[in-house]
Amino acid sequence: MKKETRRTFIQKTTVAGAGLMLTGPLQLFSETNNNKPMSIIKSKGYAGHDKTSGLTLWNFERRAVGDNDILIDIKFSGICHSDIHTIRGHWGEQVYPQVPGHEIAGIVAAVGKNVTKFKVGDKAGVGCMVDSCMQCNSCKNGEEHHCETTGMVGTYGASDKTSPSGITQGGYSNNLVVKEHFAIKIPESISLQNAAPLLCAGITTYSPLTRARFQKGDKVGVAGIGGLGHLAIKLAVLKGAEVYAFTTSESKRQDILSFGAKEVIVVDSPDKLKPYAGKLDYMISTIPYAYNLSDYAVCVKPYGHFTQVGQPVNGEFKIDNAKFFFSRVNFNASLIGGIPETQEVMNLCAENKIYPEIQIIKASEINDAWDKVVNKQARYRYVIDAATI
Amino acid sequence: MKKETRRTFIQKTTVAGAGLMLTGPLQLFSETNNNKPMSIIKSKGYAGHDKTSGLTLWNFERRAVGDNDILIDIKFSGICHSDIHTIRGHWGEQVYPQVPGHEIAGIVAAVGKNVTKFKVGDKAGVGCMVDSCMQCNSCKNGEEHHCETTGMVGTYGASDKTSPSGITQGGYSNNLVVKEHFAIKIPESISLQNAAPLLCAGITTYSPLTRARFQKGDKVGVAGIGGLGHLAIKLAVLKGAEVYAFTTSESKRQDILSFGAKEVIVVDSPDKLKPYAGKLDYMISTIPYAYNLSDYAVCVKPYGHFTQVGQPVNGEFKIDNAKFFFSRVNFNASLIGGIPETQEVMNLCAENKIYPEIQIIKASEINDAWDKVVNKQARYRYVIDAATI
Repeated sequence: MKKETRRTFIQKTTVAGAGLMLTGPLQLFSETNNNKPMSIIKSKGYAGHDKTSGLTLWNFERRAVGDNDILIDIKFSGICHSDIHTIRGHWGEQVYPQVPGHEIAGIVAAVGKNVTKFKVGDKAGVGCMVDSCMQCNSCKNGEEHHCETTGMVGTYGASDKTSPSGITQGGYSNNLVVKEHFAIKIPESISLQNAAPLLCAGITTYSPLTRARFQKGDKVGVAGIGGLGHLAIKLAVLKGAEVYAFTTSESKRQDILSFGAKEVIVVDSPDKLKPYAGKLDYMISTIPYAYNLSDYAVCVKPYGHFTQVGQPVNGEFKIDNAKFFFSRVNFNASLIGGIPETQEVMNLCAENKIYPEIQIIKASEINDAWDKVVNKQARYRYVIDAATI
Repeated sequence: MKKETRRTFIQKTTVAGAGLMLTGPLQLFSETNNNKPMSIIKSKGYAGHDKTSGLTLWNFERRAVGDNDILIDIKFSGICHSDIHTIRGHWGEQVYPQVPGHEIAGIVAAVGKNVTKFKVGDKAGVGCMVDSCMQCNSCKNGEEHHCETTGMVGTYGASDKTSPSGITQGGYSNNLVVKEHFAIKIPESISLQNAAPLLCAGITTYSPLTRARFQKGDKVGVAGIGGLGHLAIKLAVLKGAEVYAFTTSESKRQDILSFGAKEVIVVDSPDKLKPYAGKLDYMISTIPYAYNLSDYAVCVKPYGHFTQVGQPVNGEFKIDNAKFFFSRVNFNASLIGGIPETQEVMNLCAENKIYPEIQIIKASEINDAWDKVVNKQARYRYVIDAATI
């Protein structure tokens, strides 16, 4: 890195990162060409090594910054239940070591020569995907996550010939190389730690909520009030919904009301759902384990829609067909959201001060945090301070 | 029955029943009051006596004809897979003896004093329900099958205080007493044997096909080409769809093409479904057993709808959530249809000569026919000639 550029970069990040802890002088690379490191990038992160062990610090390499790439100096990285499911092999066999993390926020440290969207020093984020074909109709229409040819390339664990480790490596690390298209601009008005969870939890709930096109005052149910669910409440409230929050944790009641929910239903038995049968205009469930989905779905009015965004172990749900034909509810599932829509929710949240409830942790606390996520103790999103990696 | 009325009745049925076998002089009751038998009605039918045995002839009684009731002299009764599931206890415990059958067509033999919709000698049909509260919004809106208070009263096996046997008794019998509202007028231009299967197989597919609101030329998939499926094809073709028929029976191919399907896909392995992924505008599945529902559903275009009308053993389906979030298909299930819509499909089929493919059988062949239905040998609807009971 040229001295001048480096100085400019630090100036910029110091301004942009007001309230942030800077990770100290970057020592990522020794040469630059137009702000672009010419060689592979040394990285360190917390990796899973098998299905059962805890994550441990791992030194690895990322590809050199290509012409369309940016290098992000990661500052914060959210912990998503999907990270746990993936590394634990709940959704299929994995390649290890694997660094999870797909709620990534940091500062642009280098850009390739074709990059126009970012400059060094900008705030940037990366969510659940880092590539797709960019040629098919889905990609062209901003649904890169539904790429029809190669499929989207996930931020971690996906086969990646450009990666020295052979797979993509995620955000529980100190840096990331990514095509600029798949990076999200983070507005000045939102902090990096608040921005991070929007890149999965935010977009994953925002996308189906937007598609649901409910009217102001409509009754919207949110089931499962964790990292995704609590943002779903805030986003639905922002869109004018009267939100009914379904949780199994009585201890979350006051928090949930403070997020703007109209009513909190503590579902400690299926009977608690019965008074809501046919009452909601729309419902979204973030519950990431097998559960009595049909009992929740029937809370939606006839011919309304119910969206599942949590993905259970083995990806399978049982449904009670009679509950569906009597309720006439439409079931669908939603993955994440496309890049334009992710930028949209980022801007919307920045503008309206919709922030996730976060607990910043050190990297050494990741394994403990995972246990707490599984045990429903997160309040509501753990965010790793990458300076501690 | 007064002689004059009886004579008039026989005249009418002779005209109306051209091509029908009359069952011989009615000996159902000895007294009448305004064409209404004052006492309970002696009936005979084929009843299930437990979960496993064959049906046998059983003499039983029906309620006297009430002021709002009609008595139907049954001429034909279709065999639906639901009859088998119900009597075999696949959907829950049953009360026995129980006479199944909910595709009932016959001639009105008596009417209560308040009856205005029918007169003696009219052709009349009964489908899957014989009562509901008639007060709730669903009932008032012609969705009696979704009655919000008592629930609909099924044509057989439902608790019924007015029935001497304590439950409703269905159409594998020689007569039926039913509230006029729940009887369907059968136009002169359609024979009773062709009308019978429309009362379940017809309406059960017509209702969701109508709700799907596909456009002329749209690609509509029909999975499971039996009693319901073959009518779904004919109805979808009538509505202008390009129909893709999915069956496991190669031997049905020519029949299916003759029903108007554009293409027949013999699904002898899940791979056969792959070329259709995301291709259909809408799909309906009549498959009445657990099957790889998700593999079929993904044949629908993103954000399209897939409707399940077959109800499996125990009523449970497993779904692959990932196939739903990648395909973005909406799953729903549909029960039957309301009375106005049942009348609508009856009239539509009569007018357009949309007839089921039927095989008329004697009552003594019922048990054999059930085996054939289960073994996918029906082509395509068995209809019992009630004169043989």
